[in-house]
Amino acid sequence: MNFPPKIIENAIEEISKLPGIGKKTALRLVLHLLKQNKDTTFHLTEALNDLREEVKYCGTCHIISDTSDCTCRTIKRELSTICVVEDTPDVLAVENTAQYRGLYHVLGGIISPIEGIGPSDINIESLINRVKNSDPKIEEVILALNPTMEGDTTAFYITKKLKEFDVKITTIARGIPIGGELEYADEITLGRSIMTRTSYD
Amino acid sequence: MNFPPKIIENAIEEISKLPGIGKKTALRLVLHLLKQNKDTTFHLTEALNDLREEVKYCGTCHIISDTSDCTCRTIKRELSTICVVEDTPDVLAVENTAQYRGLYHVLGGIISPIEGIGPSDINIESLINRVKNSDPKIEEVILALNPTMEGDTTAFYITKKLKEFDVKITTIARGIPIGGELEYADEITLGRSIMTRTSYD
Repeated sequence: MNFPPKIIENAIEEISKLPGIGKKTALRLVLHLLKQNKDTTFHLTEALNDLREEVKYCGTCHIISDTSDCTCRTIKRELSTICVVEDTPDVLAVENTAQYRGLYHVLGGIISPIEGIGPSDINIESLINRVKNSDPKIEEVILALNPTMEGDTTAFYITKKLKEFDVKITTIARGIPIGGELEYADEITLGRSIMTRTSYD
Repeated sequence: MNFPPKIIENAIEEISKLPGIGKKTALRLVLHLLKQNKDTTFHLTEALNDLREEVKYCGTCHIISDTSDCTCRTIKRELSTICVVEDTPDVLAVENTAQYRGLYHVLGGIISPIEGIGPSDINIESLINRVKNSDPKIEEVILALNPTMEGDTTAFYITKKLKEFDVKITTIARGIPIGGELEYADEITLGRSIMTRTSYD
């Protein structure tokens, strides 16, 4: 029996290339789309095509953008601080805290010798140029990288590269999360949170 | 800060209309597509558009098909048995057992007074016509519907409608699944499996 037919199999195969979506989920999505009217599918595919055709990356901070008016060119932000993140969702995460009003710099990856990603594969060179040439002067670079081996390696590399400039380099605090319990915290996190304890005001 | 930009927000919104996909997963998928080359997106959208444009349903058994050559017209199947299922994935599930070589009839839904789905909203009329007019004669109709209230209602309705024809009506066995344990089976299933016990050969 020729089931599922080829157009369905084709759609399933393309959908299941997406991360976290297997063949069964893909079939479920296909059948869902077939039950909706045609516009549901066409709006979806149009949005995806537009996305892929028209997306731009800011040449300065590498944030995804649909115009050339990026954050790093708006006067409303605090222009003397750069927050360095690995990827775009991290920008969103930091924005959602409403605790930061400065600029961003998206590395677009992280140094990972295992995956063959070196310093030249991510946007470190442009960060250094930004710090070197910016006007007004960059006063502080905040490293908001994931607390992993790769994140620490990248942070270490960036710190070394920025040493020659008169810029303060900070990193986001690692410690016990709000609402977390000491009893269940891993020893490295707890150890770090003791080492980097802050004065109690 | 204008983040995420509009084309991304648009893509996220369209993707998160799919069942089981929320805004966070949608953002992850969008960023995944942006990291791949453009063809990944274009192949996906093309496959979805083709699917929605070209999909056909067999006029006899209502299985999804991309040609008019449906199972119900192939001589290789056993033409005297019809297996009635709720939807297309069920066809796939039955096919995967390799225990059935007959025809199918996809209802395209299930009678559900709560959701306002009555007998005329699903393909019951055409099932009755098939049984009435088919050549060779249909000897058996197997009801392979989900063991839910709605499934039982639908099965009951179909049985009543087919009573006037000389056709054997069966339903798939409900009972303890292979590998299941009596101790943990719910009482209705276990009760049913005792009621419908089969002789031990």
